Amino acid sequence: MVGAVTRIVDYEADSSPWSAREAELLAATLQLLQQHGYERLTVDAVAATAKASKATVYRRWPSKGELVLAAFIEGVRCAAVRPDTGSLREDLLRLGEAITEHAAKHSATIRAVMVEVSRDPALREAMQHQFLDQRKALIESVLQHAVDRGEIKAEAITEELWDLMPGYLIFRSIVPNRPPDRQTVRVIVDNVLIPSLTRPIS
Amino acid sequence: MVGAVTRIVDYEADSSPWSAREAELLAATLQLLQQHGYERLTVDAVAATAKASKATVYRRWPSKGELVLAAFIEGVRCAAVRPDTGSLREDLLRLGEAITEHAAKHSATIRAVMVEVSRDPALREAMQHQFLDQRKALIESVLQHAVDRGEIKAEAITEELWDLMPGYLIFRSIVPNRPPDRQTVRVIVDNVLIPSLTRPIS
Repeated sequence: MVGAVTRIVDYEADSSPWSAREAELLAATLQLLQQHGYERLTVDAVAATAKASKATVYRRWPSKGELVLAAFIEGVRCAAVRPDTGSLREDLLRLGEAITEHAAKHSATIRAVMVEVSRDPALREAMQHQFLDQRKALIESVLQHAVDRGEIKAEAITEELWDLMPGYLIFRSIVPNRPPDRQTVRVIVDNVLIPSLTRPIS
Repeated sequence: MVGAVTRIVDYEADSSPWSAREAELLAATLQLLQQHGYERLTVDAVAATAKASKATVYRRWPSKGELVLAAFIEGVRCAAVRPDTGSLREDLLRLGEAITEHAAKHSATIRAVMVEVSRDPALREAMQHQFLDQRKALIESVLQHAVDRGEIKAEAITEELWDLMPGYLIFRSIVPNRPPDRQTVRVIVDNVLIPSLTRPIS
């Protein structure tokens, strides 16, 4: 487990840690995952699609798990929004809609990533440092801006529940028959998150 | 796809659709899943552990996916609580704690079930009718009791979000490094669900 994982140090929230060529390989991986699923993905197919040698792919990502996790994270990074509309409600709606759209496209990949990550401590580390930490910081900054504008009180933020909306939307995307949509996001924001963040604090 | 799936009709929320012998096979399956994970589970091992013939197992559950889904659902049924404490907050805490405890024990099985169910429409149907419908009815009855007691208004219930707490807790159980605990349940109930369900309705 080297390759992807040792790149943690240089990783910044909004900039890609990959070269243009590497990003192409990851985009090809994500596309093949979407078309054929995790089980049927092969490094051969990724190399062929991106017109690279297998050795090139393996040098960067020594295992299929690493390759898929890197492709997933890079895909999220490309689709990420960093909303700053001046309104907490609007910021949350945009975040929720971006998550919903992305998860709808990549639900099979998300399921596979969860299985692979659960098996491998190094992948778990990579996911934590290259992905979850940035998502948490992003949501905390949206909430902090709302505090700065006087929309909510800092004490109303429950730090532990930073991933309540993304977690629920992802859950809905990976269970059967209930893909979330814009209306789902609207009711989470209006009926749950805003009432929670503006509740009276004793 | 017959076997497990065709039993839908007779299934009731709180009663097992299985004979004592079948329930033993499902308990053995769940135990082996916990010990060795989905990939390494074999029907041979289930039959050996429960001292049954492979043919007996295959007759009831023609595929590994069906066997595992049935074991998962039966495990949840056995661990299920149907709280009726007279207080919405207490009912929600008990529900959340039961889900947390169960998901902590069976996170690998939940991940595997999500992958299998996503691949197979018949398993998806079974999950919907033998599991999700009952869970929804249970949570709706807890909320309805709170309406009957005058704790909340019926209009404050967002039907679409009936699985917000279980969904988030299960999400937390299957992603790395963030298993939920009693404190997680407490903040969801006190800081999110109760403020949402008691928000002013215009």
